[in-house]
Amino acid sequence: MFKQVTIIGFGLLGSSIARALKAHHQAEKIICADISRAVCEKVQQLGLADKVSTDLGNSVKGSDLVILAVPPASMGAVAEKIGPHVQEGAIVTDTGSVKLDIIRQVQDKLPASIHLVPSHPIAGTEYSGPEAGFAELFVGRWWIITPLAHTDVRAVEKLTKLYESFGSNIEIMDAAHHDLVLGLTSHLPTLIAYTIVGTATELEDDVKSEVIKFSASGFRDFTRLAAQDPTMWRDVMLTNKDAVLELLQRFTEDLNAMQKAIRKQDGDYLYGVMENTRKVRKEIIEAGQAEYVYPNKSPETQKS
Amino acid sequence: MFKQVTIIGFGLLGSSIARALKAHHQAEKIICADISRAVCEKVQQLGLADKVSTDLGNSVKGSDLVILAVPPASMGAVAEKIGPHVQEGAIVTDTGSVKLDIIRQVQDKLPASIHLVPSHPIAGTEYSGPEAGFAELFVGRWWIITPLAHTDVRAVEKLTKLYESFGSNIEIMDAAHHDLVLGLTSHLPTLIAYTIVGTATELEDDVKSEVIKFSASGFRDFTRLAAQDPTMWRDVMLTNKDAVLELLQRFTEDLNAMQKAIRKQDGDYLYGVMENTRKVRKEIIEAGQAEYVYPNKSPETQKS
Repeated sequence: MFKQVTIIGFGLLGSSIARALKAHHQAEKIICADISRAVCEKVQQLGLADKVSTDLGNSVKGSDLVILAVPPASMGAVAEKIGPHVQEGAIVTDTGSVKLDIIRQVQDKLPASIHLVPSHPIAGTEYSGPEAGFAELFVGRWWIITPLAHTDVRAVEKLTKLYESFGSNIEIMDAAHHDLVLGLTSHLPTLIAYTIVGTATELEDDVKSEVIKFSASGFRDFTRLAAQDPTMWRDVMLTNKDAVLELLQRFTEDLNAMQKAIRKQDGDYLYGVMENTRKVRKEIIEAGQAEYVYPNKSPETQKS
Repeated sequence: MFKQVTIIGFGLLGSSIARALKAHHQAEKIICADISRAVCEKVQQLGLADKVSTDLGNSVKGSDLVILAVPPASMGAVAEKIGPHVQEGAIVTDTGSVKLDIIRQVQDKLPASIHLVPSHPIAGTEYSGPEAGFAELFVGRWWIITPLAHTDVRAVEKLTKLYESFGSNIEIMDAAHHDLVLGLTSHLPTLIAYTIVGTATELEDDVKSEVIKFSASGFRDFTRLAAQDPTMWRDVMLTNKDAVLELLQRFTEDLNAMQKAIRKQDGDYLYGVMENTRKVRKEIIEAGQAEYVYPNKSPETQKS
């Protein structure tokens, strides 16, 4: 489908895209560009690209698709380097978890002759680096595309088909709307997870070891989120600052109300909130976004 | 092992214990006591007990083991009802997620001739009621026992053997210490999960439906915790009030610091916290309390 694809930034997402491109024969040639020499050597060892380079500018020459898979706050600097070298008519996309700020960063640094089609795959693991990637990462996952007002629909269609070939479900969305929705479903939960795990690290040593031991009782879910790549997540919080601060404000108000209810022994208030949130889980299961798994039964046993 | 076991409160835990007692032939006779007639009828239909009764006092007569599996705030009222009828030398235990307050509630209402051995199985699902239970619920899970200073060691040993026969790992712990450790690993995460899911329910309708759709990006983990039984969790927050409020205070301070760092664009602070929390996940995996699962690969594929 594409003659030559340059992927800039070869971490978990970049290397997974390279693997998916190969697995589904979507690119004749794959170029890996990463400012880290160690990453480039690793990619060569793993045989993930036809060519590797630490020279970002040169790496995009002749490519009809360029994918920026670097941390959100580095997008502008990368766009500046590749701007003068991107081929006319090429599609440039990214994998950032924030959309408005990234568009602001890159838009003016890329020539008007290319097609900028920002996108965001809602997929990831707690591991990072080129070894951590795998072709199936995107299967059954959402891939959100946030075209600009003037983006060519054919470029959007081409990317849609590519991501669909990886097994993703596509959603087209306004960038500002994306940042609010993901702010709540992803950025705020992750910020809270990092915070509560951080709170635990400051406990007395004897309590700390038991927190590890008995983590299965709720805490463990938070540690998975709090084990993700710190560079990327630092950038997410800073580049989606307005939405994150706004949502954090609402959350803090609600948490204060819960705290007050506990202090005043107001069981009715607590029950009201807890009864209400139960419905949300039901809606998620009904929407096919989660299924109930008995902790100690295999899925086969459960079906019977 | 036991001649007659009375289980008071036949929800997820009570009914799972009944099933496990049967599966491992640990009781000659099982009596179900529940103040709800509907629950008693359901238990009879399911054939989970040899006798069912809504009369809690009478239900403990002749039993050498009595298990209180009611919500934490109801333990005192139940102890008051059964106190005059418990057989001399019987073991009385409970399954509450809070220990200090429950001991305070029940201690004076039970005769000195019985053995009070408070305990807490760290096991559960987001479903409740007698239909939701299953015998394997306790397999590979911790079951914490918090004996009083004067508790007979033989009674503790007998309960230990029983819970081990269910597949549980036993930990003996001081009640106050239990409440602090579980406050952090379970009560605080659950309180926060209920709160953030509550925050989401107050969003505008168009955003709300997309929160459901894209919940896999972090939010979903919180909804599982926030779908648990509201009566039980209301009681946990109120009966472990001191520990929960103390931990909540620490968490709020840490969250304020994160908020300030975002507002001031202090990336170094954010990175420091996020880098640090990553280690906790590593320790949990090393302690055998979690393993990494690739979201789109079967466990077999991952091992290769």
